[in-house]
Amino acid sequence: MPKLERLSISLAEPLLAKLAALVKESGYRNRSEFIRDLVRDRLVSKQWEKGEEALGTVTLVYNHNARKLAARLTGLQHHHHHAILATTHVHLSHDICAEMIMIRGRAGDIRRIADQMRQQKGVLHVELSMSSTGEKLA
Amino acid sequence: MPKLERLSISLAEPLLAKLAALVKESGYRNRSEFIRDLVRDRLVSKQWEKGEEALGTVTLVYNHNARKLAARLTGLQHHHHHAILATTHVHLSHDICAEMIMIRGRAGDIRRIADQMRQQKGVLHVELSMSSTGEKLA
Amino acid sequence: MPKLERLSISLAEPLLAKLAALVKESGYRNRSEFIRDLVRDRLVSKQWEKGEEALGTVTLVYNHNARKLAARLTGLQHHHHHAILATTHVHLSHDICAEMIMIRGRAGDIRRIADQMRQQKGVLHVELSMSSTGEKLA
Amino acid sequence: MPKLERLSISLAEPLLAKLAALVKESGYRNRSEFIRDLVRDRLVSKQWEKGEEALGTVTLVYNHNARKLAARLTGLQHHHHHAILATTHVHLSHDICAEMIMIRGRAGDIRRIADQMRQQKGVLHVELSMSSTGEKLA
Repeated sequence: MPKLERLSISLAEPLLAKLAALVKESGYRNRSEFIRDLVRDRLVSKQWEKGEEALGTVTLVYNHNARKLAARLTGLQHHHHHAILATTHVHLSHDICAEMIMIRGRAGDIRRIADQMRQQKGVLHVELSMSSTGEKLA
Repeated sequence: MPKLERLSISLAEPLLAKLAALVKESGYRNRSEFIRDLVRDRLVSKQWEKGEEALGTVTLVYNHNARKLAARLTGLQHHHHHAILATTHVHLSHDICAEMIMIRGRAGDIRRIADQMRQQKGVLHVELSMSSTGEKLA
Repeated sequence: MPKLERLSISLAEPLLAKLAALVKESGYRNRSEFIRDLVRDRLVSKQWEKGEEALGTVTLVYNHNARKLAARLTGLQHHHHHAILATTHVHLSHDICAEMIMIRGRAGDIRRIADQMRQQKGVLHVELSMSSTGEKLA
Repeated sequence: MPKLERLSISLAEPLLAKLAALVKESGYRNRSEFIRDLVRDRLVSKQWEKGEEALGTVTLVYNHNARKLAARLTGLQHHHHHAILATTHVHLSHDICAEMIMIRGRAGDIRRIADQMRQQKGVLHVELSMSSTGEKLA
């Protein structure tokens, strides 16, 4: 575990009171954890803006009856096997499947993989979650 | 000006270094100002989530040749005159107008006014900016 | 007014029914207007992604008692007078002011002007609304 | 496969040309697929706004050395076992783990589970992806 440092910041009293209420309402145990998470969220946004190495999760919903869709999606994933860390498949109903696919790479490359999945005929929804490999957040 | 208080938070050394880089890159003079702004952004998001009193700016782009559109938009604004603080009109080109409209009220009411403008035939784009009356941010 | 063309699209019956419900619920008179607005929203997002000419509205909330803030903000706006189309000032309370500032220019330049305002000491909140000069939306 | 219906919409010629360019640039094969996806994106947004049944994927990044964190996260997931469909764990580095967790339930319940994970000490980042169980999108 890395060494903890103290950071002292100044706030007007009313803003401090609102921060305290926000921390409590958000279920955090203390203000340090809350502020660390605000900083981390901003760091992750910046990583994605700048196209740095990042971690993305694609959630994919599709009808497995669509012609050759499962095969096309598998082919696409193999084409990007260097970037795709894991894929999990869930059978949501008789017809509908959902997959979540964790991808590590440059932000732009992750976006392109998600776009290629979105364009496949029969895909009903694709959502990309932007996260981080964590080295920058510790 | 309200009295300034000190808030001391603990961060692991690597995260502190990344925060310092982020503060500098974002053009802030010091970490206190940067963190105060992170907290304020979160407070404003929460105000809008909870439907509290807020400040919104609607940006409206439209073709003034659309049938009676200018009159319909003026009528709509007068209907909400208690909430609309100011409207500024800019002539962008021969045909295209832009207006920015500052609205004070409950978040849900501001959204509804923006939606009513969006639905008018001839309106090309409506965007709602979510801000705050500032009392909660000082 | 430009000539209207017909575009015919195919949808599965259940999706068509959900579209009809969505159009009604959103207060639109017909599906054409609803879909035109979906397309326009996407066009505006792309304009901002690509950094093309765009229209932005900055909403600025600040305490006018902050040292020389009003003068600093005015100076900043004059520095960008070629891009700033109009500024409207509203006195929200004894201490708090709000301004809305319409800016025309490349998306990146509009963002930079908003960032410079955000960094001024005493500014409580800055929100940027991304819109379009409309030529691309008609 | 459900029966396909035709929907005819009217657009001004310049907007139609911009739509054609956007469809091509986005890698879609035709305008029907592009517009179906715009409609589906809006349907999913509405499902989440209204708190209907939805599908969410939580991406979780954490340091597995944090005290009892892995056990706390497992406990939390078991507590919500009725909603959690699948969890996949990836070892990103010596210290850092990522998990993706697929959750089915009311939008508000999915958000609450994500929030509870975010509040655990040692968690570095949590991102929630909002998708749909697909029945409404076919």
